[in-house]
Amino acid sequence: MTPEISNRGHRMPSSPIRRLSPLADAAKNRGTHVFHLNIGQPDLETPDAIRRKLSEIETRVLCYSPSAGTPEFIAWMQEYYSGLNIDLGSNQIMATTGGSEAIFFALMACADEGEEVLVVEPFYTNYNAFATMAGVRLVPVTSRGRDGFHIPPPSVWERALTPETRIVLLCNPNNPTGTVYGREELIQVATFCRKHDLFLIADEVYREFAYDDRISVSALTLEGYEDLVVMVDSLSKRYSACGIRLGSLVTRNDDVFQACLRMAQARLSAPGLAQMIALGARDIPAGYTEEVIGEYQRRRDVLFEGLQQIPGVFLRKPEGAFYCIARLPVIDSTDFSEWLLREFALEGSTVMLTPAEGFYATIGLGLNEVRLAYVLNEEELRSALRVLGAGLSEYRRLRGLDDPELELVPSEASRSSPP
Amino acid sequence: MTPEISNRGHRMPSSPIRRLSPLADAAKNRGTHVFHLNIGQPDLETPDAIRRKLSEIETRVLCYSPSAGTPEFIAWMQEYYSGLNIDLGSNQIMATTGGSEAIFFALMACADEGEEVLVVEPFYTNYNAFATMAGVRLVPVTSRGRDGFHIPPPSVWERALTPETRIVLLCNPNNPTGTVYGREELIQVATFCRKHDLFLIADEVYREFAYDDRISVSALTLEGYEDLVVMVDSLSKRYSACGIRLGSLVTRNDDVFQACLRMAQARLSAPGLAQMIALGARDIPAGYTEEVIGEYQRRRDVLFEGLQQIPGVFLRKPEGAFYCIARLPVIDSTDFSEWLLREFALEGSTVMLTPAEGFYATIGLGLNEVRLAYVLNEEELRSALRVLGAGLSEYRRLRGLDDPELELVPSEASRSSPP
Repeated sequence: MTPEISNRGHRMPSSPIRRLSPLADAAKNRGTHVFHLNIGQPDLETPDAIRRKLSEIETRVLCYSPSAGTPEFIAWMQEYYSGLNIDLGSNQIMATTGGSEAIFFALMACADEGEEVLVVEPFYTNYNAFATMAGVRLVPVTSRGRDGFHIPPPSVWERALTPETRIVLLCNPNNPTGTVYGREELIQVATFCRKHDLFLIADEVYREFAYDDRISVSALTLEGYEDLVVMVDSLSKRYSACGIRLGSLVTRNDDVFQACLRMAQARLSAPGLAQMIALGARDIPAGYTEEVIGEYQRRRDVLFEGLQQIPGVFLRKPEGAFYCIARLPVIDSTDFSEWLLREFALEGSTVMLTPAEGFYATIGLGLNEVRLAYVLNEEELRSALRVLGAGLSEYRRLRGLDDPELELVPSEASRSSPP
Repeated sequence: MTPEISNRGHRMPSSPIRRLSPLADAAKNRGTHVFHLNIGQPDLETPDAIRRKLSEIETRVLCYSPSAGTPEFIAWMQEYYSGLNIDLGSNQIMATTGGSEAIFFALMACADEGEEVLVVEPFYTNYNAFATMAGVRLVPVTSRGRDGFHIPPPSVWERALTPETRIVLLCNPNNPTGTVYGREELIQVATFCRKHDLFLIADEVYREFAYDDRISVSALTLEGYEDLVVMVDSLSKRYSACGIRLGSLVTRNDDVFQACLRMAQARLSAPGLAQMIALGARDIPAGYTEEVIGEYQRRRDVLFEGLQQIPGVFLRKPEGAFYCIARLPVIDSTDFSEWLLREFALEGSTVMLTPAEGFYATIGLGLNEVRLAYVLNEEELRSALRVLGAGLSEYRRLRGLDDPELELVPSEASRSSPP
């Protein structure tokens, strides 16, 4: 008899971001062009200063690096954070295999199996997978599109609390909503954490991506909360270098740091080549970040204005990252997204969206919402929006949604408290 | 109040391989040369064919690669395994962040929290850390130095079995013992797995390192056990490329593969640069592996013969990998290893060893044993052995161990069954 895999193996969720990929592949095989609004893979080039380092690597033995990161990489990260007015010791920063590993280490170090993590929903769907792996339960605190997905009031947080709550996991700027939380919001959450003896894991991998002169506030700058903040960071988005798998875990809580370091020792090192070439970031010409932010802000504008013009679409103006959650005039955004890939094309093109349902833990929320990533240039975005608008119109006609007697499912399901 | 870290965070073991590093650093700061016999970081150069690829990378966006690995890397791994007469589909091989991640994924997919994993002790000490992270319990099946650390008889395995046993984790060729299990031994273990409905996780990262014309048998070649074998592999040792963090998980059990794939999707990709340069291995000149094996076999001979000549040292001739476990004429090998770094030097040099206690789960075993890695060239090995011999003699004199009335602790502690 073949042994049965583990329950957690069965429970591991597949990625809803990639779930429609077979349909997209089939569309491409039919000769249809697919505009990818579904995944946060920046199209911008990795800076030359970083790529150039590849041919400068002279190490003849590509050996293990220290488990916490190479001294050179850690020193450079210190320098980077210092530029954000965050002073850190070298033993408060750890190199990780992408932000992903940092999130997983932080969850493992701050909660035990069966304990609970509060997370503002909609949230980055892979948190579900890390929670399953760590054996912890994600408990949603629902944010609302009408509020621009900003932090819900303290009463909502208090209701979600149980004796098993150990962690608040906060993504700022937010994937998938594009919301940038202000200092007061962060202080509200940190105060809640202090009151209930919780850790605050702050996923800040989109730090640079804040628009309209917003400053994204790092949880590491909150005074008086140093001992409960664990910050997760990554070079993936900042330098359009997702594939090198390099991030960091930063905390001033030495117990957390040492526990994570022991996990880091188990896996020996973070990727060594990545740590070598990351040092090239020191030589990136001044103005690079401003230029990138400007580019994404223009794209954000194109996307937002374009979506505004499609009848029945609702969203507040996204403030950061390169995502937004939009409500569509459909009943089931999964059905619509699949239909776009299966059956629709405008002048040979269709659009790939991510249904938002997978970003909610509360059942029934997000059914008529999608996540859009704006990692295409402005011209492509405009074309994608034209295709999306035409698709929506055609889909509504085919599904009979234009019938004035048919009432759409309300945008916010009635069940608002966590299950 | 500062929140308390998790119990598992507290329980995470620090690496006994690296525990003495501060003493080694202090010795170096005193000007003492330290021969590192403690860690398996090969000194050989990463093949030029691989390193050359670094300057050939022309990708301008270092983007995410597919979660299961790039098609090119997977195709090349298929080719590599095919050369070992192991035919695999592309959906049976997954790129992982080193062998470490593959072991962790496999444990997670094959057992739930609180369940048990049988492992031949002494074993690779980082298994302890992965088990703590996965919430599973390692249950030792003790192998003996007098038997060359070969597979214990079925009765020993049966005694270690409980209703919670789900997995046998086997490292072949073995770290830390240097033992290469023969086909009959593997079949014995696989038969035991079949009988009790267990998965067999085979850590084969030292596959190429088998000496005296031994062939190391992959668990993937055992006929009739295809559904229960999960094989863990790595490029680290094969190509002296530990730092690139690239390995693979191979299984013909699709349920296990899919569960691991969902974990792989959570962390997005394995290191991308590593997958690109690994393709250079195709261009490694014929004879490379034979040359490397020849080099290690000569080192093995130097180490074995040198150790044989030190009075009171016992070990059988190591058969593979680049480690051995040797019994020393001391009572406490940790005390001896620390003393070597703290107080001893011969002509300005000392030796760093890894006390073997951390490779045993059974308390009381391994106290007078050390693990030695032979990743130094022959000349350095000879020097290290001279230092070790002199150190042992001096230490025994200082500790009064030469007193003929003093009886050494027996090499095998009386407690042989798992706790």
